[in-house]
Amino acid sequence: MMVLITYDVNTETPEGKKRLRLVAKECENVGQRVQKSVFECLVDPAQFVALKHRLEKIIDKEHDSLRYYRLGANWQRRVEHVGANPGYDPEGFLHI
Amino acid sequence: MMVLITYDVNTETPEGKKRLRLVAKECENVGQRVQKSVFECLVDPAQFVALKHRLEKIIDKEHDSLRYYRLGANWQRRVEHVGANPGYDPEGFLHI
Repeated sequence: MMVLITYDVNTETPEGKKRLRLVAKECENVGQRVQKSVFECLVDPAQFVALKHRLEKIIDKEHDSLRYYRLGANWQRRVEHVGANPGYDPEGFLHI
Repeated sequence: MMVLITYDVNTETPEGKKRLRLVAKECENVGQRVQKSVFECLVDPAQFVALKHRLEKIIDKEHDSLRYYRLGANWQRRVEHVGANPGYDPEGFLHI
């Protein structure tokens, strides 16, 4: 199933930047980064449980948040992109 | 219909911060901010077209991106939140 993961973190601190890097690394194992802190991950239910477990160990739950959106079947029909390419990164931050 | 809107912008510049504020203002008219640059908007098809038009006038298409995800019916069942409350904002940035 396709799961959209959005991660809210303050990247003005080195710790926040590091957590974003670690979250990105986990998500990129099973999907792709489509914006700086938005990931589309293709997982089966067991992988999803394991991924959530790993992500929730990385984040600072007092300050950061994660949202998971299960996009269901036909998810490609539900998505539209406008503007800069997903891989565009003015800071050399994305690695798509 | 529920549309999830994610906005990728560099908020390290005053112009980027301003664009995020303007995008947030438009989205908050028809929905709520759930993360710093993630919005859940309840719109009918005509409102969605009008909203997209307004947002795409605000953003810098060379550097920013917008993604729209039509979440469909039963969208509440598809969402999970972990960590800080949607309204939490270390910078006094959110207004929920």
